[in-house]
Amino acid sequence: MPSIPTETEGFQVDTPGVPPDFNRRSFKLKAADDYDVDIKIEACGVCGSDVHTVTGGWGKQNFPLCVGHEIVGRAVRVGPKVTLVKVGQRVGVGAQVYSCGECKQCKEENETYCQVNLINTYGSPWPGTDIVSQGGHAAYIRTNEYWVFPIPESLPTAAVAPMLCAGLTVYSPLVRHGALKKGAKVGIVGIGGIGHFGILFAKALGAEVWAISRSRTKEADARALGADGFLATNEEGWAAPHRCTFDLIVNCANSIDNFDLAAYLSLMDVHGRWISVGMPEEAGQTVRAQDLASNGVLIGASHLGSRREMLDMLKLAADKNIKPWVEEIQLGETGLKEVITRLKKGDVRYRFTLTGYDEVFGQ
Amino acid sequence: MPSIPTETEGFQVDTPGVPPDFNRRSFKLKAADDYDVDIKIEACGVCGSDVHTVTGGWGKQNFPLCVGHEIVGRAVRVGPKVTLVKVGQRVGVGAQVYSCGECKQCKEENETYCQVNLINTYGSPWPGTDIVSQGGHAAYIRTNEYWVFPIPESLPTAAVAPMLCAGLTVYSPLVRHGALKKGAKVGIVGIGGIGHFGILFAKALGAEVWAISRSRTKEADARALGADGFLATNEEGWAAPHRCTFDLIVNCANSIDNFDLAAYLSLMDVHGRWISVGMPEEAGQTVRAQDLASNGVLIGASHLGSRREMLDMLKLAADKNIKPWVEEIQLGETGLKEVITRLKKGDVRYRFTLTGYDEVFGQ
Repeated sequence: MPSIPTETEGFQVDTPGVPPDFNRRSFKLKAADDYDVDIKIEACGVCGSDVHTVTGGWGKQNFPLCVGHEIVGRAVRVGPKVTLVKVGQRVGVGAQVYSCGECKQCKEENETYCQVNLINTYGSPWPGTDIVSQGGHAAYIRTNEYWVFPIPESLPTAAVAPMLCAGLTVYSPLVRHGALKKGAKVGIVGIGGIGHFGILFAKALGAEVWAISRSRTKEADARALGADGFLATNEEGWAAPHRCTFDLIVNCANSIDNFDLAAYLSLMDVHGRWISVGMPEEAGQTVRAQDLASNGVLIGASHLGSRREMLDMLKLAADKNIKPWVEEIQLGETGLKEVITRLKKGDVRYRFTLTGYDEVFGQ
Repeated sequence: MPSIPTETEGFQVDTPGVPPDFNRRSFKLKAADDYDVDIKIEACGVCGSDVHTVTGGWGKQNFPLCVGHEIVGRAVRVGPKVTLVKVGQRVGVGAQVYSCGECKQCKEENETYCQVNLINTYGSPWPGTDIVSQGGHAAYIRTNEYWVFPIPESLPTAAVAPMLCAGLTVYSPLVRHGALKKGAKVGIVGIGGIGHFGILFAKALGAEVWAISRSRTKEADARALGADGFLATNEEGWAAPHRCTFDLIVNCANSIDNFDLAAYLSLMDVHGRWISVGMPEEAGQTVRAQDLASNGVLIGASHLGSRREMLDMLKLAADKNIKPWVEEIQLGETGLKEVITRLKKGDVRYRFTLTGYDEVFGQ
């Protein structure tokens, strides 16, 4: 058995920019423990969070930072107590890599809501160390087996990568907040990386799915993805015919600019749920109890999803042969700058996956 | 059988004021139909809505207006098709007196969320007429039998009146949003007219109940009402020990002045529900998806409760011998000015009921 590595090589951002510089260098991995898995990375999807982080939109982060949290690769080493992953297995890592495992939330499969020790895939200090977690624009990643997900054979690497964050982010609120109800009418607001998974998964779960977008530009795409209906919010009177009819709307929009929240809320059936998964950079929206009382709508947000939901989602994707729309980009400084620049202006249909890791880091 | 009356006598407000003038005069009743019940009023609780309305806090209303929507009296006439109420029966009327009865919401016992034809007890034009609905500071009220609720024998008239709006307003979100869960931890924010019912009913439903108030002034009252615990939000660090532990908090506060919403939301367990039933006059609060994501809390509001919930609540109150804290005031211009003035400054523990109707209107 080879000695356990202490570092890996990857692309770090030192200072936010649009796009920032990506600096190839070595950085420390967390110390390996008995439950850790080392993964040689083969692909990484590009998430809106990466853009918010490296362009400075979410403010101060733990720079220098290697971002990327939609990771697919091979397990190349497992700790002596690992039982969930085998060496050689193709696996994924999403946007979180650790939680305490002991609190009420963790024990109830709400580990992505752990209040005790929640470690993000990048940017979180590993407790008791000076090491900040680093993401998937790198040769290797190491983390606890619980946060490493075996990937069904039939799902192609570049296509499955974005499911690890974008997919799960919308899958979890769909199954938790109403899409499984018989005859559920589900809306997906914001047809981007997350939203396109919203249409795919809501349809696969059996719901009646409506895509909701500012204009009809993406209508053909939405219908090709499986939407049963389409609403364009720049059209006069778009909301009235659907008043009080939706069981669930997952709001995947990444901005609240010109966002008529009251019109959206009017769409909800009694106690229907308006769940946001985008985290806009803007200051927020004003809500009055009066605006929520006429249909008793519930407003919420959702954070990733549990391990069980991840495994269920991957199985659903395999069983239903779900095909995300993914554009592959060669990893490297050029590719990273391109994806950040294009994502910042929404120029992708509907997700980038960085591939060609062997070209950069060798076999 | 006497001829069917077309008018009744009561106290109307013409212009908002603090307090306004209450003018005794006759006004029209809706035309009687086959399903209507005429009630000779004996008592009427005084709701925060009455104060918001007659002092102008909620803006333009349909003045002149006779307010009051926690009405108890005797059925003195029933239409030929009425089956739910008998002449001579003691009955109540709450804050709503009609809905379409035909829409999805009405058919699913969400009639207080009817989007088609929701008639409030006072201030709503009866469709197809020039008659605006008038409330309980009057000798008689007439409405559809569905909105007339037989009252269990054991509940005293003055004590039960405030249940018709305040009681139901907090009972419905308790049973809909989590108080029935085994071991539920429920918070009641704002220990006023509605909040005191919140403590009484949450306890009667079996929950662990925490009263949450600005200071400890009302702690003894809250514990006497049945609260298991008490949190004072003016104390440093009040929220931290309860982080992520509440299943449901019903926010009964009537103002958002100095209201630290983020601290309240931090109390909620994963997908716990923060349900507002107060309708403050202020402009609202800013909410960001980020504030809701760490525990997936759901924010909502609630509007009254269904007929079934009303009957269940009255039965629970009778079965558990629930005793609201009510101060009786003689109906009349003096009494009305007094209750509005005292309610405006929160000087009541915890609800007024106007009584002595016979003194004013005769037997």
